[in-house]
Amino acid sequence: MQSSQRSQPEEPEDAAATFERIFDRATSPPWQQQITVRAMVVSMLLGTLFTLIIMKLNLTTGIIPSLNVSAGLLGFFFIKMWTKILDKTGTLRQPFTRQENTVIQTCVVATSSIAFSGGFGSYLFGMSEVIARQSSEAEGAHDFKNPRIGWIIAFLFVVSFIGLFSVVPLRKIMIIDFKLTYPSGTATAHLINGFHTPEGAKLARKQVQQLGKFFSFSFLWGFFQWFFAGGNNCGFESFPIFGLKAYANMFYFDFSATYVGVGMICPYIINASVMIGGILSWGIMWPLINNRRGDWYSADLKDNDLHGLQGYKVFIAIAMILGDGFYNFFKVISRTIAGLVYHLKEKDARNGNLPVANDSNSAALSPSYDDQRRVQNFLKDQIPTWLAVVGYVTIACVSIFTLPYIFSQLKWYYILVLYVFAPALAFCNAYGCGLTDWSLASTYGKLAIFIIGAWAGGSNGVLAGLAAGGVVMNIVSTASDLMQDFKTGYLTMASPRSMFVSQLIGTAMGCIISPCVFWLFYNGFHNVGVPGSTYPAPFALVYRNMARLGVEGFSSLPKNCLTLCYVFFAVAFSINFVRDVVGRERARFIPLPMAMAIPFYVGPYFAVDMCVGSFILYVWERLDRARADAFGSAVASGLICGDGLWTLPSSVLALAGIQPPMCMRFLSRTASASVDKFLQGSNCSLYDC
Amino acid sequence: MQSSQRSQPEEPEDAAATFERIFDRATSPPWQQQITVRAMVVSMLLGTLFTLIIMKLNLTTGIIPSLNVSAGLLGFFFIKMWTKILDKTGTLRQPFTRQENTVIQTCVVATSSIAFSGGFGSYLFGMSEVIARQSSEAEGAHDFKNPRIGWIIAFLFVVSFIGLFSVVPLRKIMIIDFKLTYPSGTATAHLINGFHTPEGAKLARKQVQQLGKFFSFSFLWGFFQWFFAGGNNCGFESFPIFGLKAYANMFYFDFSATYVGVGMICPYIINASVMIGGILSWGIMWPLINNRRGDWYSADLKDNDLHGLQGYKVFIAIAMILGDGFYNFFKVISRTIAGLVYHLKEKDARNGNLPVANDSNSAALSPSYDDQRRVQNFLKDQIPTWLAVVGYVTIACVSIFTLPYIFSQLKWYYILVLYVFAPALAFCNAYGCGLTDWSLASTYGKLAIFIIGAWAGGSNGVLAGLAAGGVVMNIVSTASDLMQDFKTGYLTMASPRSMFVSQLIGTAMGCIISPCVFWLFYNGFHNVGVPGSTYPAPFALVYRNMARLGVEGFSSLPKNCLTLCYVFFAVAFSINFVRDVVGRERARFIPLPMAMAIPFYVGPYFAVDMCVGSFILYVWERLDRARADAFGSAVASGLICGDGLWTLPSSVLALAGIQPPMCMRFLSRTASASVDKFLQGSNCSLYDC
Repeated sequence: MQSSQRSQPEEPEDAAATFERIFDRATSPPWQQQITVRAMVVSMLLGTLFTLIIMKLNLTTGIIPSLNVSAGLLGFFFIKMWTKILDKTGTLRQPFTRQENTVIQTCVVATSSIAFSGGFGSYLFGMSEVIARQSSEAEGAHDFKNPRIGWIIAFLFVVSFIGLFSVVPLRKIMIIDFKLTYPSGTATAHLINGFHTPEGAKLARKQVQQLGKFFSFSFLWGFFQWFFAGGNNCGFESFPIFGLKAYANMFYFDFSATYVGVGMICPYIINASVMIGGILSWGIMWPLINNRRGDWYSADLKDNDLHGLQGYKVFIAIAMILGDGFYNFFKVISRTIAGLVYHLKEKDARNGNLPVANDSNSAALSPSYDDQRRVQNFLKDQIPTWLAVVGYVTIACVSIFTLPYIFSQLKWYYILVLYVFAPALAFCNAYGCGLTDWSLASTYGKLAIFIIGAWAGGSNGVLAGLAAGGVVMNIVSTASDLMQDFKTGYLTMASPRSMFVSQLIGTAMGCIISPCVFWLFYNGFHNVGVPGSTYPAPFALVYRNMARLGVEGFSSLPKNCLTLCYVFFAVAFSINFVRDVVGRERARFIPLPMAMAIPFYVGPYFAVDMCVGSFILYVWERLDRARADAFGSAVASGLICGDGLWTLPSSVLALAGIQPPMCMRFLSRTASASVDKFLQGSNCSLYDC
Repeated sequence: MQSSQRSQPEEPEDAAATFERIFDRATSPPWQQQITVRAMVVSMLLGTLFTLIIMKLNLTTGIIPSLNVSAGLLGFFFIKMWTKILDKTGTLRQPFTRQENTVIQTCVVATSSIAFSGGFGSYLFGMSEVIARQSSEAEGAHDFKNPRIGWIIAFLFVVSFIGLFSVVPLRKIMIIDFKLTYPSGTATAHLINGFHTPEGAKLARKQVQQLGKFFSFSFLWGFFQWFFAGGNNCGFESFPIFGLKAYANMFYFDFSATYVGVGMICPYIINASVMIGGILSWGIMWPLINNRRGDWYSADLKDNDLHGLQGYKVFIAIAMILGDGFYNFFKVISRTIAGLVYHLKEKDARNGNLPVANDSNSAALSPSYDDQRRVQNFLKDQIPTWLAVVGYVTIACVSIFTLPYIFSQLKWYYILVLYVFAPALAFCNAYGCGLTDWSLASTYGKLAIFIIGAWAGGSNGVLAGLAAGGVVMNIVSTASDLMQDFKTGYLTMASPRSMFVSQLIGTAMGCIISPCVFWLFYNGFHNVGVPGSTYPAPFALVYRNMARLGVEGFSSLPKNCLTLCYVFFAVAFSINFVRDVVGRERARFIPLPMAMAIPFYVGPYFAVDMCVGSFILYVWERLDRARADAFGSAVASGLICGDGLWTLPSSVLALAGIQPPMCMRFLSRTASASVDKFLQGSNCSLYDC
């Protein structure tokens, strides 16, 4: 799940309407000058940081909050520092512009989004042996493909660029003619515009100070925790704050600064949904199903056998995710078609180039000063359509030839079919995202998993499905990212060319950085993908089982599991429907099925973290609303980034074979007493053995 | 050690000089009306709370900060609430006056100071078997006297009142003629006066709010910690924050809200001294001496044998404490004599009753308006001298007859001699305390331990010495308390009679509450007095060994221990001398030997707590000086009181046999790995055995 809600308040409309007058004196630099070397260096650094964070989130729970605010803030901070130093030494040749800032933002988002769409926590890792073993034990060697850095980079390079070329000719229609909102892109643009006005820079500096403070705190906290985590079930990560019984049911606070920060960024309803889902599943359903052990499923099964309790956890979660996904798919598709029809009609009626207000911030029907300036700037630098077509066809051909070498199960004609339909899907997703801010990349990917999996069938089905899902996910996700960035660029007067080139560079960086970061995790922590470990990568199993479901049908599920799946699919579908029907005001109090489904499989401990984050923000808002609004997301970003950065040294330590010196462990009083006796009897002391 | 430094800033002099005009409309109520039932009820509650806290401090490290601010604040808060409720129901007959507040303050301090002077952490508990066994294993049954609630109450009643009668006739000389400062008493008076002005009440309410917030936090934190402390070396109390090696040398943070609060109240130099002492002893000296194991002392000895390393810890600490004590004794005695001579000369020269400014806040030579009003009030209610004499003689006779029944080793003529010299000692202490704010009760007690111990000699010496020390400590401590309270009463226009009666009532309450609270600890926690346990009562062993030293001489000490003792005695003496010579400004940077000596025996872990407290206060002062000054001691008091109150339910739980459910323990990685294996091999899980 990739939520892209933004907590940054949008600028008031009347202020926005004449905003560009402030910048009248400053003309936008030509597009080549917007992409500077310093911007690329900073982008690479930040891209690596965010890739680390997103990779960690991928491999822990799969919940990824929007990191655009952090990217904007940190990008601004680094370049500002850089230019200040150069300015003092007298060697500054080019001042820091908002266009350059937008380029960084675009590049960082492009780089780090590969960490999500690359499927390291979902389809790609779902192909591996460790996940295959969990899914079913009888599967043969041809049914898994272990991650290796070589083929992953090759795969990403082949599939990640095609999405860009597929939507680039549509930018004028979407941004200027349809005037789509792209809430995240708009908010980011306002943020960047804000930074580059004098007051904005002051606020930004303060925000960066807060971010830095909590960044350091979070980093040091991660460092401190490390010392006490030498062994299984050790350290703050397994602190049974609600007692050992609750801990056995995954209810505990794991002191993760990341998820506390995520909880502060996500809206209250997401956190509440996750908690409700956790209570429903681990608090009620799993204990009840566990009581049926021996009746509903064999009592001899291992804990993580999919024919036992684990099966209920995984497939009910999948059912909810699919229920939510399909509802949103149909909703967005229908709105897309309706909107398209409306827009085209409007265009016909007006017969001109002038922008038409719809779903947009600017309420004026006649173009405002800002709009005029922005349209003028946006249309100045063109990207020829022939380039897009040639690029698309070339990459498609390369893919069709190379992908079957990487995945022998994926035949060339599957890929051809995918690439015929891909531009349509890419457009759908870019358009839907412009309306709702919700990228359905993973839903389109799931669809492809089912369809190609069923088509391939038999022994090849699972891997063929997963690979096809990956191809689709990459295409549609990069397409919507690019369109978001065009919107940002439009509002910050950056050239579409510089946006496109920046996106290309960022994507290329992501295709190399993400596999390397994944490689670091995969080799640094030996039990990545194992349930109950630090990095269970929960969605990898979910994706693999979706592919199996497509191939095998429902025959292998344990007793009553299918019934429960139907129920939860229907529940997810209906809750979404109810949310849409009751209106926005009341929908705030109805949980989101997608968020509810995650703890079904992962466990509710991260929901506790997120609720702690919510609670902190709530108390802060009660005490000092203004400061909480201004600095809340900076503090949260600091917490997330600091913990994320700690992942780097911690995995380097793990790679170097340096283990934490101590173990903080929690035992029941009786168990502790026998451990005491054991330690006295053996040659062990507290300090050594 | 009982430090009585105050962090409450004193009122500016010019404001104080006309302070009483604010209260001109309000006349002081007659003394009988100052002692109300509600005041006594509140005093009893607060007295119990503070007794709990002081008892806990007694039994953990023996460092007791001044709790007068808390007593003043909480007393004000409770009565204000009481009167507000009564006022709303229309049944309030008597408004809350500052005199009543002073009565509460006096009564609470009298009650809780018995917890210190009763010797539950020093001489009285030093008589017990558990301490006797640590001191030397060959001692017979007549050499210990285990605490029992009956004889303790009897003993306290017999010795605690005589100090009051011994100094009561001197109050006019000390308060009005000599105008002694009594910094703590003065500060408390300003606090109470401040509360009862309109702005003061507002500030007080805010302070109480802060206190309440941190009180709850600290109480809940204690409660939370409890769950994880089920077993030896379990819980936050044994958190090896600096690693297991440092933990083995007692360097760790034990998450005690009490000592963090104590650190916030104590001046920086005290905390620094404690830390320096801890590093010097546990960081350098003990490891070095431990290396001489087998050379300086037999390697076969148990860890807590006084002929081994433990002997160095205890006797070097005693040497430093005695060095500091004797220096201060001679200093205060000489200043007392010099001051007395000066005062008497002045009095002769002036030939009148008018007060003479000396060491006093008020710089005016002619009496100010405030002074006139206060003197008039102070002299209104007299306590006849014959009452004091009759009281003293009666109690002395009762003591001489009953004490030998309680302690068979204490002959009646020892007591007679003590009671002949006691008034002189009581006067010395009350006078010295008036000048320096430092009560030397424990030093006078130590003197008596030596002298009577040596006089009794042989098999009776130790217990006779300890009992005699207790008698002296009680007398001189209550005497200085009473005089402090007279000063407070003088400044708040309370009647000396109400002060005296309140002190009598408070002392009587203390004589019952303190033994009961001690009884709670003694029975609730089974290893009170055992080194390394939660309540090691470090000074009990120190006092017992002082008595032994007096009786036996230095023959039994391990090799080089006596030399080191001489060195540290000299060091303590000289450091004090240097502190006095270099002047106040530079003395701020020279550590206090008394504070340095405490961790020598106890270990430096509480020094870490106190430094954390200092650090918090320091950061707070840097961020917001005004708020830190206004609320620092309220926050600290909240931390101390909350944790102190948690002691009550925790010991009740222990008495009821309810143990914490979990154990949070810290093992090295290797030890943890073997524990893992052991748990897998046995029938134990994390949750049960």
